[in-house]
Amino acid sequence: MIVVLHSGTSATEVQSICERIRALGCSPLTVETSDRTVIHVEQIPGPEARESLKRLRSMSVVEQVIPLGKGFERIAETAKFDVGGIAFGGNSIVLMAGPCTVESEEQLFSAAESVSKAGAQVLRGGAYKPSTSPYSFHGLGVAALEMLRDAGKQFGLKVVSEVMDPRKVTLVAEHVDILQIGARNMQNYDLLREAGRSGMPVLLKRGMSARIEEWLLAAEYVATSGSEKIILCERGIRTFETATRNTLDISAVPVVKSQCNLPVIVDPSHATGRRDLIEPASKAAIACGADGLLIEVHPNPEEALKDGAQSLSSEEFADLVPRLQAVAEAVGRKIGVPNAVR
Amino acid sequence: MIVVLHSGTSATEVQSICERIRALGCSPLTVETSDRTVIHVEQIPGPEARESLKRLRSMSVVEQVIPLGKGFERIAETAKFDVGGIAFGGNSIVLMAGPCTVESEEQLFSAAESVSKAGAQVLRGGAYKPSTSPYSFHGLGVAALEMLRDAGKQFGLKVVSEVMDPRKVTLVAEHVDILQIGARNMQNYDLLREAGRSGMPVLLKRGMSARIEEWLLAAEYVATSGSEKIILCERGIRTFETATRNTLDISAVPVVKSQCNLPVIVDPSHATGRRDLIEPASKAAIACGADGLLIEVHPNPEEALKDGAQSLSSEEFADLVPRLQAVAEAVGRKIGVPNAVR
Amino acid sequence: MIVVLHSGTSATEVQSICERIRALGCSPLTVETSDRTVIHVEQIPGPEARESLKRLRSMSVVEQVIPLGKGFERIAETAKFDVGGIAFGGNSIVLMAGPCTVESEEQLFSAAESVSKAGAQVLRGGAYKPSTSPYSFHGLGVAALEMLRDAGKQFGLKVVSEVMDPRKVTLVAEHVDILQIGARNMQNYDLLREAGRSGMPVLLKRGMSARIEEWLLAAEYVATSGSEKIILCERGIRTFETATRNTLDISAVPVVKSQCNLPVIVDPSHATGRRDLIEPASKAAIACGADGLLIEVHPNPEEALKDGAQSLSSEEFADLVPRLQAVAEAVGRKIGVPNAVR
Amino acid sequence: MIVVLHSGTSATEVQSICERIRALGCSPLTVETSDRTVIHVEQIPGPEARESLKRLRSMSVVEQVIPLGKGFERIAETAKFDVGGIAFGGNSIVLMAGPCTVESEEQLFSAAESVSKAGAQVLRGGAYKPSTSPYSFHGLGVAALEMLRDAGKQFGLKVVSEVMDPRKVTLVAEHVDILQIGARNMQNYDLLREAGRSGMPVLLKRGMSARIEEWLLAAEYVATSGSEKIILCERGIRTFETATRNTLDISAVPVVKSQCNLPVIVDPSHATGRRDLIEPASKAAIACGADGLLIEVHPNPEEALKDGAQSLSSEEFADLVPRLQAVAEAVGRKIGVPNAVR
Repeated sequence: MIVVLHSGTSATEVQSICERIRALGCSPLTVETSDRTVIHVEQIPGPEARESLKRLRSMSVVEQVIPLGKGFERIAETAKFDVGGIAFGGNSIVLMAGPCTVESEEQLFSAAESVSKAGAQVLRGGAYKPSTSPYSFHGLGVAALEMLRDAGKQFGLKVVSEVMDPRKVTLVAEHVDILQIGARNMQNYDLLREAGRSGMPVLLKRGMSARIEEWLLAAEYVATSGSEKIILCERGIRTFETATRNTLDISAVPVVKSQCNLPVIVDPSHATGRRDLIEPASKAAIACGADGLLIEVHPNPEEALKDGAQSLSSEEFADLVPRLQAVAEAVGRKIGVPNAVR
Repeated sequence: MIVVLHSGTSATEVQSICERIRALGCSPLTVETSDRTVIHVEQIPGPEARESLKRLRSMSVVEQVIPLGKGFERIAETAKFDVGGIAFGGNSIVLMAGPCTVESEEQLFSAAESVSKAGAQVLRGGAYKPSTSPYSFHGLGVAALEMLRDAGKQFGLKVVSEVMDPRKVTLVAEHVDILQIGARNMQNYDLLREAGRSGMPVLLKRGMSARIEEWLLAAEYVATSGSEKIILCERGIRTFETATRNTLDISAVPVVKSQCNLPVIVDPSHATGRRDLIEPASKAAIACGADGLLIEVHPNPEEALKDGAQSLSSEEFADLVPRLQAVAEAVGRKIGVPNAVR
Repeated sequence: MIVVLHSGTSATEVQSICERIRALGCSPLTVETSDRTVIHVEQIPGPEARESLKRLRSMSVVEQVIPLGKGFERIAETAKFDVGGIAFGGNSIVLMAGPCTVESEEQLFSAAESVSKAGAQVLRGGAYKPSTSPYSFHGLGVAALEMLRDAGKQFGLKVVSEVMDPRKVTLVAEHVDILQIGARNMQNYDLLREAGRSGMPVLLKRGMSARIEEWLLAAEYVATSGSEKIILCERGIRTFETATRNTLDISAVPVVKSQCNLPVIVDPSHATGRRDLIEPASKAAIACGADGLLIEVHPNPEEALKDGAQSLSSEEFADLVPRLQAVAEAVGRKIGVPNAVR
Repeated sequence: MIVVLHSGTSATEVQSICERIRALGCSPLTVETSDRTVIHVEQIPGPEARESLKRLRSMSVVEQVIPLGKGFERIAETAKFDVGGIAFGGNSIVLMAGPCTVESEEQLFSAAESVSKAGAQVLRGGAYKPSTSPYSFHGLGVAALEMLRDAGKQFGLKVVSEVMDPRKVTLVAEHVDILQIGARNMQNYDLLREAGRSGMPVLLKRGMSARIEEWLLAAEYVATSGSEKIILCERGIRTFETATRNTLDISAVPVVKSQCNLPVIVDPSHATGRRDLIEPASKAAIACGADGLLIEVHPNPEEALKDGAQSLSSEEFADLVPRLQAVAEAVGRKIGVPNAVR
């Protein structure tokens, strides 16, 4: 941490800042340059002190506080992990697929069967759906959770589903293998903590205007609350471009990998909002190192209750997988094989 | 609602879309232009049907669905209201001020006394603080709520404080006059609903990447859940500019007013992140029609546990108010007078 | 300038960087902290060396280069100035008004007469118009320049008009009092240099995705090329919000003023794109310290060949000025009076 | 084109709009819905009329003007092309590589030799460099152009270099095979027209805040001015994310391809600003359909006069090409082979 003072700061003021730094358990190293004093802060005892040091910029004599190093510790050390036998962050690429929203047993089981046959290892499906409008469909709730659990069992798929309310974490955790935290809730800290406390694997989507650093700090909330099995999911960020629903920040995949060990997957459906872009976006994701994909697949996207415009049909998904496999192999990896098939 | 079909759509397909429209209780009016069919959808029975119609864009023969009119009903009809005698949305401008975070009884009562004397009508102060890092200070919780209630009583101020967890809505509601929903939780729909169910006045901050339409739909969640006393708060949006913490979208004030009757206030502290910009931003807000301001004031900003760099000192706030009063008068309004003084 | 090295950088590598720093005429001051070496660069001889130092981040051992101070010198020292007797950056606020595009003598003279009577001191009007589509109207060119010159003369107004092509700077300069550089050309460096060389006053619009620092560096191009009479114009930046054409970054006004002495004006027409928002945006601009406004006024906006939706009618403009005057007075300033009237 | 009127528009006003539509050579088709009049505009004679129709939104009775179809004609019809025997937009992927800036004969020839051997077909190198600061290095100008021409000849490479000034188009065109228009000049219309008039192939970079539609309209300027050999280059857009220099909008590649036939390449150097991200970004680009890459390669990036932090060394580039080849093959394409080698 470097604290740059304005030129003209008095010796007394410098002294007073140094005392605040020492009070936080750190050591100040004062450098007199030709036009100002700069303080290097040493021996920061932990991340709490690091956060407190940033507050020095409230002082009028402080021009800048420049943090060095990372603000997270736990996720930086996290090891590779598996979820019910499916390895994340290793050589294989995990396909997660299924409908945006669980609409009926028929729809879900049809989707589950087809994605399982096509090569997906994880079934996705919304039981509780966030919607911009209060007048939209909000999901079937617990009935959908039961269907997801049953469909997963029947077709040898692990199950991921979103939880939005900290009061429902336990309920959702009883039915699924991975808890999903959606983009709108990436900074819903009570939810992050509750999800962490469950000890369940957590799929954490990037907030639509979250910087990568903020996303990783959200993951740190989950990790410090009790779960270190965190799958990060890039799903597009909000920009000025209107040709796509969001802007897929594909570089986020290698950027995250340069910072921590957590697996990163990509959701091409939400990132683009367009069925015709799912294939190129999926290939790009695999080529640049993503550990998995989260794709919306619906038996009949034209009839979908939500987000049909960004869903593949079951046939389209099955057709796509071999082409994704080819790209995976080109970068020395392979699409994983469903449990039931092994 | 206008549904534009791709050229070449067959009569059978048109027929099938018309049936879907009728199944939603609406009437399709089909227009054959020289190069394509366009369907005007009439007699939409309510906002749920309106949302369902948007799903037609999932169909491959649909090029565009163009919604006409607004997606919200309740907030469009909301009347002006008051909170404990303080009128919102009328001729007077309400100052809300106080520390970012309640740190101690001494700090809070000192701030409350000074902002009350200076002309604020509402005391702000965080008991539960959202923080990007899990290692930051997160507030004193219920102890802070009690101090807020007592300080408000003593200095004749109404109290606003943030609630982040739907499980704490009742608790916070027992201590404050206005529930605040923060920017990070603008699309935390379970929280919005719980806040609405409390029947309490709600101060709803704009999400940092929320379009105005999305913000109004978030308010519609609160309104349809039971509370129509909603105060909207513009607090800056996230852009590429780094000179300020966020970018104050000052035009949002008149844009919102052209859409609904809810009062709109501005938070110059979070919008700019810089103490020296609070004055110009506050004046701009009043000049363009804001119904109030939410300003961070701390007895000693340099010692603040959070956000000191964007807080005014008690003296600076007291100095500022008369200058804000002058701008208010120039646009035919006036800064309200604290309850205790009247 | 502070150069932070990665931990583990060898003494030889540190030595080699220090030599590069010395080769640029600067003095390195090396600080050994507990986990890394940090180099403070002293006695930077000028802005060219400052730019060259930034290149050190190309080196793999360099973690960060942190520039201190400003990258511009000339505009930081610029004094207040006037254009043909109209003072900029002082106590009075300058109104610039007129049609987006010069369409005909009748239209222009009607607009000029009305804005002059209403209180404008500068006539704006496009002779060369940038348009997103090659199929749009591009202006009347030199014929428009002549009309502008004549209308200015007749109604006692100074004239500002945009130049887009460095080959036309001389021509435009012969007809107007202030050269305008549009948002799309803010980083058209050959144009900036040519405009600067003309010695004419330059109105420099902010690029639609330019950070404030980049805008000031663009002004520095003009200043170092020969003209120090530069008027900065905030005209909205591009963000995700679609309710307005651009997002008016009102905080840019005080931010610029904290960095240099150049006058800053606001263009509420382009910033909002909506006639009904011109009034609130103009008041906000004046309240927060803008030195002038650039407003589109058309005798009949509904018939305008370009941008009618963001133009006031002559009557609307005349009605507005007294209300702007009230806000100006509330912040201790006044709207300037046209030359002809004095 | 659909013109939606506000409810309550009188028959006379509707009549008057219909007359304006007829005056533009178009046919209005009026539809009375239950709550408003909507006008479908038919038989639009050409793109100029289309642009003029958009101006109807200036009228207060008009709520929305909804353009259907595309605003460009020429680039939509453009055929695949080649530049000196190098095919663009077909099965092979073209590598363009070389230093950001030509610094010396030694540097350029070393770079040219290495990229040619490694598989590049086009040599890039800046003779005129846009720089945010007037105090940065601006390129060697005509001397650099001569070196580029000679290096290209010697190593069997075509040459691309940026032109910023319309007065220099002829000069640059005499030395290179492809004129580059940089991101900052994407809406410098005089330059676009001059480049088009040269008849030369043009590499058109996307502006840093340009929507895809605006980028294609910029290409339409070039095409209508005389050159239809246009190579579009995605180079990252400006967003709130600061981990990368820009945000690579990888979806832009397939979006453009869904709109027109022009080839699209990707510049991973500018898009990411980080040497370590060039490989994953390049692979992502190829996987999602890019027709080429523009990569900065420098014999010694740590010594580069500009942008070294985003340049590969000659060795790194040579190592990378086979891995790119693997991804190309996975999507049924191949990296092209340099002319000299064939």
